[in-house]
Amino acid sequence: MNFLNEVSQRFPDAISFAAGRPFEGLFDTELVHRYLRRYTDHLMERFDDDVALVRRTVLQYGRTKGIIHDLIARNLAVDENVVVDPESIVVTVGCQEALFLTLRALRRTEKDCLLTVLPCYVGVAGAAELVDMPLLPVKGSPEGIDLADLVAVVKRARESGLRPRALYVVADFANPSGISLDLETREQLLRLAEEHDFLLLEDNPYGIFHAPDADPLPTLKALDRDRRVIHLGSFAKTGLPGARIGYAIADQLVSDGNGGTQSLADQLAKIKSMLTVNTSPIAQAVIGGKLLEHDFSLRAANARENAVYQENLRHLLAGLAERFPPDQRSGVTWNVPTGGFFVVLDVPFPVDDELLELSARRHRVLWTPMHHFYGDGEPRHQIRLSFSYLTVDQIAVGLDRLAEFIHDQRERKSGTAPCRGGQL
Amino acid sequence: MNFLNEVSQRFPDAISFAAGRPFEGLFDTELVHRYLRRYTDHLMERFDDDVALVRRTVLQYGRTKGIIHDLIARNLAVDENVVVDPESIVVTVGCQEALFLTLRALRRTEKDCLLTVLPCYVGVAGAAELVDMPLLPVKGSPEGIDLADLVAVVKRARESGLRPRALYVVADFANPSGISLDLETREQLLRLAEEHDFLLLEDNPYGIFHAPDADPLPTLKALDRDRRVIHLGSFAKTGLPGARIGYAIADQLVSDGNGGTQSLADQLAKIKSMLTVNTSPIAQAVIGGKLLEHDFSLRAANARENAVYQENLRHLLAGLAERFPPDQRSGVTWNVPTGGFFVVLDVPFPVDDELLELSARRHRVLWTPMHHFYGDGEPRHQIRLSFSYLTVDQIAVGLDRLAEFIHDQRERKSGTAPCRGGQL
Repeated sequence: MNFLNEVSQRFPDAISFAAGRPFEGLFDTELVHRYLRRYTDHLMERFDDDVALVRRTVLQYGRTKGIIHDLIARNLAVDENVVVDPESIVVTVGCQEALFLTLRALRRTEKDCLLTVLPCYVGVAGAAELVDMPLLPVKGSPEGIDLADLVAVVKRARESGLRPRALYVVADFANPSGISLDLETREQLLRLAEEHDFLLLEDNPYGIFHAPDADPLPTLKALDRDRRVIHLGSFAKTGLPGARIGYAIADQLVSDGNGGTQSLADQLAKIKSMLTVNTSPIAQAVIGGKLLEHDFSLRAANARENAVYQENLRHLLAGLAERFPPDQRSGVTWNVPTGGFFVVLDVPFPVDDELLELSARRHRVLWTPMHHFYGDGEPRHQIRLSFSYLTVDQIAVGLDRLAEFIHDQRERKSGTAPCRGGQL
Repeated sequence: MNFLNEVSQRFPDAISFAAGRPFEGLFDTELVHRYLRRYTDHLMERFDDDVALVRRTVLQYGRTKGIIHDLIARNLAVDENVVVDPESIVVTVGCQEALFLTLRALRRTEKDCLLTVLPCYVGVAGAAELVDMPLLPVKGSPEGIDLADLVAVVKRARESGLRPRALYVVADFANPSGISLDLETREQLLRLAEEHDFLLLEDNPYGIFHAPDADPLPTLKALDRDRRVIHLGSFAKTGLPGARIGYAIADQLVSDGNGGTQSLADQLAKIKSMLTVNTSPIAQAVIGGKLLEHDFSLRAANARENAVYQENLRHLLAGLAERFPPDQRSGVTWNVPTGGFFVVLDVPFPVDDELLELSARRHRVLWTPMHHFYGDGEPRHQIRLSFSYLTVDQIAVGLDRLAEFIHDQRERKSGTAPCRGGQL
């Protein structure tokens, strides 16, 4: 994604549908002070005013698995109806470290590999590369995943001597597709994981960002009866990105290598002790304070942010419909997620990084070419639009520019437009 | 080190010479607020009162290589006489992540390996294990490193087809040995690294904790004229452990894999983007504020802490001399570092974890068996004593208990004492 960052920096006046960042209109550094005080007050009460112990907890080296695991467990119960032993939670440096730890633990030999639905969040390919773990792509579908292909891929892998350890999956408002799995698919996934003996590695950064009147579906972890699901969580979108706090719920029992068993959480902690030692307790305290302040509900804490995202999503979808009406669509279509941060646009031409640069330079609008999420470098006829970081006015102007860019490309493709200015 | 933690928890009334943690008598959570405000004030000035930009810098996802790299560069110039381009600094989640990133970058094939002086900080073995990089042990010596053995190990490695990429070395007050390298050895190391084509991976967590009237020796990085030294820094002992902030200086030029070159710092950043994405800017702001508050001098910032360490060191050495006078030493000796956190005690019996448990249970005193720093599990006749975390009173009582334990063991060894109570 370095190329995307570099393009953003070169065209600072471009409107960016590229950045999957949380809305920062409500950011305030005073919140950090407030959350910190909320958390240290909580510790003072919990430790019977032992101020030295409070200071040690927040300022000294700390517990490898983290210090806000108990608060995270309460958040999961309140927001997700997921009941877990706090001891099975490992607090990590963002969700990315949780992903790395999990893959490092699952990759024991070169035969261990990871199943991923394509298109897929780039951080998964990155973490898998770092631990030398091969990825086995599974076909996506308009419903999120092609289950017949999943079974076929697992069978083929086993026949060739590989061990598919887990399927990485985002059940709610996936990045980049925006797709959510229906209940039937979730249950099928759990059944197939059991039948074919692999784990589900559920990542859930966007789950709470749904329509306020919607009845959210249970996460895979909420449906998990046999500890088949390792659940990864992130506070980057729901807490504060600058705290870099995520976590893994890893309540599986695994071999300890000495003939006994240990929890997967303890195994992740052992790896973490060699990687980052422990997650900054100061940063954890900030997220802990936010959880305390909102009675453990991040849905409640993010009511205003979610209203922004929902409003942005409405404007984006309405704006696309306005600029590409049914009778003039000529190959431009898009999916219609009901939440999350992303919409995917299908366009009638292949999209690569050079085209993004052209869009930035000539039309002052940025977006993400979808081929980055397939890992093979092959240009796709698809664009990811993020709507989390913009105002409705920026969305309106950005869509005007995007429509202009797309019309230009269509005309160029059909050979009717003169080539205007500059090299590609 | 899980066993050590577990023993500490089981014997909370034991005095611990085991924990290599910074003194926490001066900890105060108000300092976090103060440093944060100092840093955000600094940003307000730097960004011409653009409050949105300040908020984005501290609260949003941030630059992979960090946001306080410029302040760290100033600290290095002030405290270490090291002048580096801030772009060659990568801010990390503690020094441990810097170590991991560096080893992951150096380990390109299974032929790449790491040289380490034994005894060695356990985090090195841990990070090397995570990246599947073999360790080639080099003999230590009372002066720190056996240079003839270093050359022999490098030659043998090359003859057997291995590539020794770097030597991990702590030049000042090493953990666990407490030893500092003299100037001649430092210069020899740089010369040998050049001659035999390997890098020096210098870790420097304790360098500023020397006698106030001592003239500190230059770090390897300060002596480095050919970019042979990757320098790892930590704010865990000098800033605040709870911030979990460290860094790597990686100003080497390396292949970018596409026929061009890039800085090693950028390569580390690429790995970091797949591991932890970026280091918490909130945690960085805390350390940045501390640097600003003390005009970039951590030597100045730690004057009171260092006085505690020096006083503790004096008490520890005097207390040992008192309890083991020259005529009654019978095999108990120790080295005499002039700073840092550690002293090594030689004892006339092999020391393992069971003996530590006995010491904890029967004598209520904890320490670290030195075999943990050799990686082969073979008990050594050595004990590491940390003195950073204790008061002088605790040191006095702890030494009484330690002397009792040692006398017990000596008598037991010579068969003159009855075996008192409980299983070993």
